Amino acid sequence: MRPSGRTLNQLRAVSIETGITKHAEGSCLIKIGDTHVLCTATIEDKAPPFLKNTGLGWVTAEYGMLPRATNSRTRREAAAGKQSGRTQEIQRLIGRALRAGVDRSALGERQIVVDCDVIQADGGTRCAAITGGWVALRLAVNRLLKAGVISSDPMLDHVAAVSCGIYAGQPVLDLDYAEDSAAGTDANFILTGAKRLIEVQMSAEGATFSRAEMIELLDLAEEGVAALVAAQKAALA
Amino acid sequence: MRPSGRTLNQLRAVSIETGITKHAEGSCLIKIGDTHVLCTATIEDKAPPFLKNTGLGWVTAEYGMLPRATNSRTRREAAAGKQSGRTQEIQRLIGRALRAGVDRSALGERQIVVDCDVIQADGGTRCAAITGGWVALRLAVNRLLKAGVISSDPMLDHVAAVSCGIYAGQPVLDLDYAEDSAAGTDANFILTGAKRLIEVQMSAEGATFSRAEMIELLDLAEEGVAALVAAQKAALA
Amino acid sequence: MRPSGRTLNQLRAVSIETGITKHAEGSCLIKIGDTHVLCTATIEDKAPPFLKNTGLGWVTAEYGMLPRATNSRTRREAAAGKQSGRTQEIQRLIGRALRAGVDRSALGERQIVVDCDVIQADGGTRCAAITGGWVALRLAVNRLLKAGVISSDPMLDHVAAVSCGIYAGQPVLDLDYAEDSAAGTDANFILTGAKRLIEVQMSAEGATFSRAEMIELLDLAEEGVAALVAAQKAALA
Amino acid sequence: MRPSGRTLNQLRAVSIETGITKHAEGSCLIKIGDTHVLCTATIEDKAPPFLKNTGLGWVTAEYGMLPRATNSRTRREAAAGKQSGRTQEIQRLIGRALRAGVDRSALGERQIVVDCDVIQADGGTRCAAITGGWVALRLAVNRLLKAGVISSDPMLDHVAAVSCGIYAGQPVLDLDYAEDSAAGTDANFILTGAKRLIEVQMSAEGATFSRAEMIELLDLAEEGVAALVAAQKAALA
Amino acid sequence: MRPSGRTLNQLRAVSIETGITKHAEGSCLIKIGDTHVLCTATIEDKAPPFLKNTGLGWVTAEYGMLPRATNSRTRREAAAGKQSGRTQEIQRLIGRALRAGVDRSALGERQIVVDCDVIQADGGTRCAAITGGWVALRLAVNRLLKAGVISSDPMLDHVAAVSCGIYAGQPVLDLDYAEDSAAGTDANFILTGAKRLIEVQMSAEGATFSRAEMIELLDLAEEGVAALVAAQKAALA
Amino acid sequence: MRPSGRTLNQLRAVSIETGITKHAEGSCLIKIGDTHVLCTATIEDKAPPFLKNTGLGWVTAEYGMLPRATNSRTRREAAAGKQSGRTQEIQRLIGRALRAGVDRSALGERQIVVDCDVIQADGGTRCAAITGGWVALRLAVNRLLKAGVISSDPMLDHVAAVSCGIYAGQPVLDLDYAEDSAAGTDANFILTGAKRLIEVQMSAEGATFSRAEMIELLDLAEEGVAALVAAQKAALA
Repeated sequence: MRPSGRTLNQLRAVSIETGITKHAEGSCLIKIGDTHVLCTATIEDKAPPFLKNTGLGWVTAEYGMLPRATNSRTRREAAAGKQSGRTQEIQRLIGRALRAGVDRSALGERQIVVDCDVIQADGGTRCAAITGGWVALRLAVNRLLKAGVISSDPMLDHVAAVSCGIYAGQPVLDLDYAEDSAAGTDANFILTGAKRLIEVQMSAEGATFSRAEMIELLDLAEEGVAALVAAQKAALA
Repeated sequence: MRPSGRTLNQLRAVSIETGITKHAEGSCLIKIGDTHVLCTATIEDKAPPFLKNTGLGWVTAEYGMLPRATNSRTRREAAAGKQSGRTQEIQRLIGRALRAGVDRSALGERQIVVDCDVIQADGGTRCAAITGGWVALRLAVNRLLKAGVISSDPMLDHVAAVSCGIYAGQPVLDLDYAEDSAAGTDANFILTGAKRLIEVQMSAEGATFSRAEMIELLDLAEEGVAALVAAQKAALA
Repeated sequence: MRPSGRTLNQLRAVSIETGITKHAEGSCLIKIGDTHVLCTATIEDKAPPFLKNTGLGWVTAEYGMLPRATNSRTRREAAAGKQSGRTQEIQRLIGRALRAGVDRSALGERQIVVDCDVIQADGGTRCAAITGGWVALRLAVNRLLKAGVISSDPMLDHVAAVSCGIYAGQPVLDLDYAEDSAAGTDANFILTGAKRLIEVQMSAEGATFSRAEMIELLDLAEEGVAALVAAQKAALA
Repeated sequence: MRPSGRTLNQLRAVSIETGITKHAEGSCLIKIGDTHVLCTATIEDKAPPFLKNTGLGWVTAEYGMLPRATNSRTRREAAAGKQSGRTQEIQRLIGRALRAGVDRSALGERQIVVDCDVIQADGGTRCAAITGGWVALRLAVNRLLKAGVISSDPMLDHVAAVSCGIYAGQPVLDLDYAEDSAAGTDANFILTGAKRLIEVQMSAEGATFSRAEMIELLDLAEEGVAALVAAQKAALA
Repeated sequence: MRPSGRTLNQLRAVSIETGITKHAEGSCLIKIGDTHVLCTATIEDKAPPFLKNTGLGWVTAEYGMLPRATNSRTRREAAAGKQSGRTQEIQRLIGRALRAGVDRSALGERQIVVDCDVIQADGGTRCAAITGGWVALRLAVNRLLKAGVISSDPMLDHVAAVSCGIYAGQPVLDLDYAEDSAAGTDANFILTGAKRLIEVQMSAEGATFSRAEMIELLDLAEEGVAALVAAQKAALA
Repeated sequence: MRPSGRTLNQLRAVSIETGITKHAEGSCLIKIGDTHVLCTATIEDKAPPFLKNTGLGWVTAEYGMLPRATNSRTRREAAAGKQSGRTQEIQRLIGRALRAGVDRSALGERQIVVDCDVIQADGGTRCAAITGGWVALRLAVNRLLKAGVISSDPMLDHVAAVSCGIYAGQPVLDLDYAEDSAAGTDANFILTGAKRLIEVQMSAEGATFSRAEMIELLDLAEEGVAALVAAQKAALA
């Protein structure tokens, strides 16, 4: 029934390759099916001004898409002179999600910037960015620990995200672009390794949804995130 | 336990005054406690270019905040030269929510722009904007029906929104600013008059949350929206 | 002869309601007929950098118009990404006018920002903004005096503004929109309570004007400002 | 008494040299003392969209200042990414003033753009721009007449502008920079060749002013404009 | 002598992998040592407006750098709100270079946009972008030919680019970042497969240079471009 | 054969008039035929932040064109809200060229800003800006020396620039606009008084070019720059 022939609760193939750029303190290329996102983490010695003398660190994210990551070319935001509302909304989401998995006091007064750049898009780019961004962040923090810059690990748990939706009347896991553009309801769930919820975003695209459907989508998401966390662990091993 | 002395499931005082500006096709001033939002609906004869020759209409929203709607003055976005990511995120949300309650085919190829301007803020401005924006939209559509411009009513159901959150460890309804800035989890629910879900946004601010808490917040939201829909009906009567 | 039926030297109904927002140090809603402007004054502890170590304070103003304050919807300046030339010209004027009524040495090295936001427009918004802005400023300064932050009153006199013009060949006071858009000459006068002149702006819209007409308009303006100053006093009483 | 040694009603030396650039349809370099402004007029075959099918033409103006036209270098507006409020205010004034001297029906549906660029500034640049801009406009219109594009002359009368002010307690004509920055009241008068008023701008800089002073400044302005109109005639002869 | 141990006329390792994204009409990932650039070509059915009804096509380029392509993180241009002067200069250069290798009449009234995004930078990114961009362009044109959209091949010859410079007093080929930042003279040469010159850019960074040195750098460039053209051929075979 | 009737190696008439504005520390108006550029040099007491505590100074340039410097009116960059890629490319070139002629250590930690504004354009504006900009810079440095602010002369040699190109198949010196827009190859050479090369930019506009043509153009440029340096000397004498 799904365009890709997947079962209702089947993730696309997941691949996370670490260390793919020589400059960044942490990096990976995450592939969720045909959605490919390059994630890098940069350690900056200073926290943002609003944290001065609080002892707390910060994690922030920026998101971009190469112009031809999409089926038809998207205008380059740098040329347009501003980031779209969609881009800003996504990068705020990624930052919030990653911060929820970090003890900012243990991180100390520094900032880690996670850049997520979509090389190829086929649905679910914000979820891939969070799942891959967490790996880049983990690697950068490992470097701080190894160098003795910080002594206790600020990473509280894994953070991963997956989309779900109601497609052709059925709850399905991990929408690809063909499904996403036709789904009645579109949801993104961000969970920890321990299945605690960080963020839920559910939106009626074509039809409103019920309490029962909300719960079914959460069930699917828990299953999907478990597989993504396993992939994060494998990539870091 | 709540700073305002409200019970856990108690909304703030709700007031919706219609017809408060002489120029707009629909308008109201909605007050949810000390949060006051001026909503106007403008009918435009043309739909956006991407709908040309589809027979479908469009509803869109813009959101703004007067500089001194907040406790300390916020920089005017027109002076800053751009709308913040937060503003863009909110106005995209309002537009999606209102469109979910409209049969765009019955509306025909025209656009209704709903402007929501916060005169005074005390938490929950986006929810007040949706609830009040729906009233302004309803009034503008009434005018189209009365003038015979359209013949069948495109309004499918009421749309209203309320925030909930986990404050001091307890699920509470309709956060005011004091609660919002201290809440562990912050959620916004948008529902129809028939309690169908349009949008769910739940975000861990300080602590992650569980499945059970997610359901408890939904319960509160259903209760709150029912009261808001009643207030919409009373204002329009 | 006038569209509104007013006599040549008749002001529209004036109403000034103070204390209309809980956050601002001073605020009022001024209504001059169907022109409604919300004015707030914000006290900032620091003066602008160019006044550092001069002992002098500053008063500045910002002006905005809600998109549907006008008969047809005006594009939101925050969305357009800049303030129009008209907006900048008006807010510079308001700032200059208010500063002319203040002893900046007695104010001390602080800044008061007066925001004037037009809720509904029917001609004469800049004049209403000045007259109402002065009330908000007066209230904010009262608070500084009451709190003992400053000891001598920096307010030198009332400041109020009114428009006049030559409509259908006759000098008239306080143009509404219908008159303004058809007037041959359009003028704004800003005066003190003692009838000293602060600013005169006269502009031939459709026809040039004579010395004699210039004087006649000034006569009308003196009369109008006297009534506005009385309304300011009543509102503050 | 004046820094320059001029009498109270003495203009600075005026020079208007026409035809100073080979590309423009009309051009001049106007020098009022050390204030030098290059004015060009460009004829465009189309009127602005809002005049389509009205039969009316348009005259508009743009104003700029070279970075080192001033005593200390001013930031280039093109580099800053926007025109200042002052620049926009001035170019709107120049446009209004020139349009007041043109029968837009006789001009027909075309636009003339007058660019006024200050090469060297010593006070009174907006007045010099209007006086010189009128000469450039006159020359461009002459070309339209000579080519038979239009048959009746749309130029109604000369337009010229001069500043006056109250300096050291005395009304003086044509303020230079030293006077302008110390004046209590600063005024700009725009008049026709027949001494009809087009625009009056009077502003209390340091001290408010009286009705009597307003009239004295108008007397000086009439005298100054008469001399400027004579200089326009001589330049065009 | 060179930091990398290369001989004076030795290129870095060159790799060009084609077809690396599923959406673009032509694509490759070019690696010149540690400089990695992703190049995609997009075919658009319409030529830019200035070519309307000329029968001529257009090739244009855009250039970007991921924030952490560099050793320390570079601010994202989309976030900064504009493309730097350097970016604009480079993308204008790439576009000119590629157009010089195309018969725009044989291409017909369409546009090909070549996006060059630097994934990792180690000097010579603009040269890699041109050499890789040509491969993406060649692949997109092949698709037009195969589909019968155009009948004669518009590609006139290969286009490739290489940098040279005077490093530690010696002319060297293909500067990496360590050399580039210390070079006395920096040059970029763009040549065709037949060694015709398309563009020469030579710039004294620390010391001026002589006629003789100019010729020596050209000799090196001819050698380097020959190897790059061979790599292009191999990648396309 | 040339539109102007000049011989292949003939420069246009050159005139450099110094001291043409009273405010700038150095200034000149350079005319190369009908290309007229106003150059001013401004001394600033502070070097840019990246040079703090290095003991080195900086020379930078900005470039602009009056709207009607060109045959048809060009949109004002300040109104457009940004400098074009072409403007930025040119001003970066001017700055690099002038810095190549300065010992920044002898200049000390200060900055000189050279503004080059094109009053009338007829091809070769960037070369005229460099040649004239150097004269303005020389005059400003002379003032520093005379005032004893610096003790040793930081000016290493003259810097001048000229364009060459292949027009109608022939190498020609100093292209005017008619030649420039039809040239097959367009080149700019920047040289010192001692004929050392600072920058070479050669670009195939319509046809690629050969090694031999590259050398011929260099020969012409050396001849042209010698004449320009002589004109600089005469202007400063």
